[in-house]
Amino acid sequence: MTGTELPTNWGRWGDDDQLGTLRLIDAAAKERAAAEVRDARHVSLARRVRPVPLTTGLGPVGSPAVMPAGVLQIVNFNGVKPVAMTDTLVVNTHNAALTHLDAVAHMPVDEHVYPGVPVHAAVTPTGVTHGSADAFGEGIVTRGVLLDLVPGGSLPADMRVADTDLDAALERAGTTLSAGDAVAVRGGWDTNQPLDQPVPGLDLSAVRWLNEHGVSVYLGDIGDARPAQLPLPLHQVALARLGLPLVDAADLEALAQLCEVSGRWSFMLVLAPPRITGATGLLVNPIAVF
Amino acid sequence: MTGTELPTNWGRWGDDDQLGTLRLIDAAAKERAAAEVRDARHVSLARRVRPVPLTTGLGPVGSPAVMPAGVLQIVNFNGVKPVAMTDTLVVNTHNAALTHLDAVAHMPVDEHVYPGVPVHAAVTPTGVTHGSADAFGEGIVTRGVLLDLVPGGSLPADMRVADTDLDAALERAGTTLSAGDAVAVRGGWDTNQPLDQPVPGLDLSAVRWLNEHGVSVYLGDIGDARPAQLPLPLHQVALARLGLPLVDAADLEALAQLCEVSGRWSFMLVLAPPRITGATGLLVNPIAVF
Amino acid sequence: MTGTELPTNWGRWGDDDQLGTLRLIDAAAKERAAAEVRDARHVSLARRVRPVPLTTGLGPVGSPAVMPAGVLQIVNFNGVKPVAMTDTLVVNTHNAALTHLDAVAHMPVDEHVYPGVPVHAAVTPTGVTHGSADAFGEGIVTRGVLLDLVPGGSLPADMRVADTDLDAALERAGTTLSAGDAVAVRGGWDTNQPLDQPVPGLDLSAVRWLNEHGVSVYLGDIGDARPAQLPLPLHQVALARLGLPLVDAADLEALAQLCEVSGRWSFMLVLAPPRITGATGLLVNPIAVF
Amino acid sequence: MTGTELPTNWGRWGDDDQLGTLRLIDAAAKERAAAEVRDARHVSLARRVRPVPLTTGLGPVGSPAVMPAGVLQIVNFNGVKPVAMTDTLVVNTHNAALTHLDAVAHMPVDEHVYPGVPVHAAVTPTGVTHGSADAFGEGIVTRGVLLDLVPGGSLPADMRVADTDLDAALERAGTTLSAGDAVAVRGGWDTNQPLDQPVPGLDLSAVRWLNEHGVSVYLGDIGDARPAQLPLPLHQVALARLGLPLVDAADLEALAQLCEVSGRWSFMLVLAPPRITGATGLLVNPIAVF
Repeated sequence: MTGTELPTNWGRWGDDDQLGTLRLIDAAAKERAAAEVRDARHVSLARRVRPVPLTTGLGPVGSPAVMPAGVLQIVNFNGVKPVAMTDTLVVNTHNAALTHLDAVAHMPVDEHVYPGVPVHAAVTPTGVTHGSADAFGEGIVTRGVLLDLVPGGSLPADMRVADTDLDAALERAGTTLSAGDAVAVRGGWDTNQPLDQPVPGLDLSAVRWLNEHGVSVYLGDIGDARPAQLPLPLHQVALARLGLPLVDAADLEALAQLCEVSGRWSFMLVLAPPRITGATGLLVNPIAVF
Repeated sequence: MTGTELPTNWGRWGDDDQLGTLRLIDAAAKERAAAEVRDARHVSLARRVRPVPLTTGLGPVGSPAVMPAGVLQIVNFNGVKPVAMTDTLVVNTHNAALTHLDAVAHMPVDEHVYPGVPVHAAVTPTGVTHGSADAFGEGIVTRGVLLDLVPGGSLPADMRVADTDLDAALERAGTTLSAGDAVAVRGGWDTNQPLDQPVPGLDLSAVRWLNEHGVSVYLGDIGDARPAQLPLPLHQVALARLGLPLVDAADLEALAQLCEVSGRWSFMLVLAPPRITGATGLLVNPIAVF
Repeated sequence: MTGTELPTNWGRWGDDDQLGTLRLIDAAAKERAAAEVRDARHVSLARRVRPVPLTTGLGPVGSPAVMPAGVLQIVNFNGVKPVAMTDTLVVNTHNAALTHLDAVAHMPVDEHVYPGVPVHAAVTPTGVTHGSADAFGEGIVTRGVLLDLVPGGSLPADMRVADTDLDAALERAGTTLSAGDAVAVRGGWDTNQPLDQPVPGLDLSAVRWLNEHGVSVYLGDIGDARPAQLPLPLHQVALARLGLPLVDAADLEALAQLCEVSGRWSFMLVLAPPRITGATGLLVNPIAVF
Repeated sequence: MTGTELPTNWGRWGDDDQLGTLRLIDAAAKERAAAEVRDARHVSLARRVRPVPLTTGLGPVGSPAVMPAGVLQIVNFNGVKPVAMTDTLVVNTHNAALTHLDAVAHMPVDEHVYPGVPVHAAVTPTGVTHGSADAFGEGIVTRGVLLDLVPGGSLPADMRVADTDLDAALERAGTTLSAGDAVAVRGGWDTNQPLDQPVPGLDLSAVRWLNEHGVSVYLGDIGDARPAQLPLPLHQVALARLGLPLVDAADLEALAQLCEVSGRWSFMLVLAPPRITGATGLLVNPIAVF
């Protein structure tokens, strides 16, 4: 991996920047977002997840589950006549069944995370000190565009999505992209598959395209392909080098349908993960508002 | 507690309804929400929470913390030269330091939850089967209004907020409420205080006011007062009887400032908790978009 | 269930006793235990349990597991060049795959636990205040006898073990029992089966036999039968009414072999669960010393 | 750190040995252990630990606790009229408040664990594959000797315990050590102190002494001193190079008293941690039987 050839934002916004391409969301991008809102119809871009019971407390044999689970749950005992019912959730954020935002601390390259901080200085046993999900704390509101690579269908498993494929999808969307916009890339896939199964994904030309268009956030129901090509275009180049936050494992089916119905492929995107600091990423329920 | 005297929506939308007052958010409410969006400036209404390390793995004595913590964190070992850094979060949703949405299953009255389902049928050791946070899965987008009870200040600890106080705040906001709108009620308080400390809160007349105005969602930096008056106006009447979802422990300081700056106290409210099913509530980062 | 007909120790050692039949282990019982030790050969009576990974942190799909698991594990990140490797274990003590000691607070009858304490006074959301595993903190050392109900084989699934079966096994063991001794009852079963599968177990006459012989602790690879007969002889009579601690889900195969080899069916039994207070039970690795 | 000068057992029992000095517990050692048992009086050598509630589920502010805690607890909801009460425990084994056994995988030197296995091959994100607590699964039964360095008192904080100190304590004990015996070393300390507080500990000559006497297991209320001298004599030499399992954070006060009363300082030691595989260590309740 030759750093000089790969696109990078290391140093672009200083040596200790934690916002990355979120800095591209300026007043003009916000105004474009506002202009997309007509009747406030909205749709969720998140996968639904059912927690796995961490305990029933009783009985010999429970249900088969695929472990590690994304979310586990313990319902709490609050007394014999409880005033309230509560539960405790255990969250493995980066599980592939969960729609989540990756913070830049999630992904080192050459033992450094964006924008060049040694991983040992960024991530400690007691939490992330640089490049954490803090960057998402205020929420993210910007214009989003759906790039549907295969309307009504799904990509072949061995597809490597290139810049030209993104161009074609953008043309189908009948709109343009400006710096600070987000993209939602639909391949028609559930990529939560066994590791030895091939899944389509973006290639490096596509990530260069994201960079050239000033994309602020990437959402996708596809991400990096398997078998992997290194460096991983999205995780090791877009996230790690461009500081471009990724929403992994989005579910874009309902969005695609609403785009079809409404005849437009752009919207206001709202990302509002829980305001938890010091994490490597956070669950998110992306909302597209029309 | 005589059910006939308290406002109730039990039965209003059927015997197994799980949406409650979210049903009031109709197309007209959505259009009002859309009309609030001008330049997409936004603000988070969530408290920031720093996880407590669940383990450092080493050393004899750690840091003092107030337990139970809202969120605990374990940073995961991913190998000696990790491809990625990850962590596991443990979330006690209803902790008073966390901004969260209460599902109706959270709060039984007379051993039933909204709209009259026995709590033993609604909440099981393996999760919530009726009245869970599933209701929030699509996200909530509606018009919101800030009712600032004490602009620039904070309520006295023994204040019981009445319907007339809400009227006055609404008049100060210079707007009106229609059925399906949400309210954000600011008392200028951090109510995450020891249980024996008094905190202000809404009284029953205020909850009747919410009902009469068709409020769909309540957010507040104040909630039910302490010492408690029973039934708890918000948790045992609004949530349990009206099926009116509550956002507990909001932080409304930044919102109040933005309202002052922008000269309006209404906005589009977006609630997008993680799309986790079967829970008694969920963390949320409410976003107000202007 | 008529309390007068069932054997009970409620009140025998006071109204707030927490030791139950452990009080039967007197100096004479200890001396009998000591007399069993010849060459200190020993054997474990515990099932081996492999933790289920709570997270790998990476990858889309893990391994199938039966959930809830008995023990889950997270390996901790301790820095890039760790001084030490550590892990966090999550333990669901009463899982049927785990050899564990039941404390009396585990099992209420008529909403009371041994010796008649209301369950709401014994178990609180923050731990057990009466009848907890504290009783086991000092460790338990007494004489043990293996009652092998079916040497070299396994009981039929519909077997209900009666007092006469225990008599026969004791006679085969060629020894006698005195008050304070423990018994290890072998049925040749792995009872960690789906709940709808029948498993053999003790009937009420067998529990009366335990009571009449002054048994201090019960270990078994069988326990209460399925389909259940109520009251559950071991859990609702022996544990709940006699205050007789149970070791559930023991593995007695190695013990049975060592007994055959050594030609004696009695030994010193050592039970030494972690010294954790306030729990409803604890994992234990029972050791038989010869 | 020059390996040639430090005592080592790497290679002594093969390149993939996992038992280390437990191999020294031969039939003769067992017979010595048996000979110590007279009346089966016993004492626990474990610290008592009260779990920290992981959640109460309710209320704004809990109790102050020092985090990370050794053991956390969630009491489980098992239904409105529960058949049984259960709880889930979360265990940070190596917490300094917990009496626990260190497996050799716990402690790498030069990125290798005993007996020379690369740490990345021994410890994986899904558990320990070499040098785990599996070695303790059968339980450990051997002769133990109390080496009381300061009868009735406590060592000065800056004390570095040398071979001659162990000689003196052994002489006071009025007995000798043979290969395979365990030692319990009492300094009269609670070493669960803030990291910047000095605590006494063994020096390298003491570890050489352990090696020369063929000690199979080390228990102590003291361990490695603070400020640390490198290599840590017990953790980086005894455990990592000799494969000598350590019981950290023992409580030896009751043992010392029983030794005084009974007039002898030797006993049968039983170590029986839960039979959990793949862990870096396990809680243990060591029992001394007289």
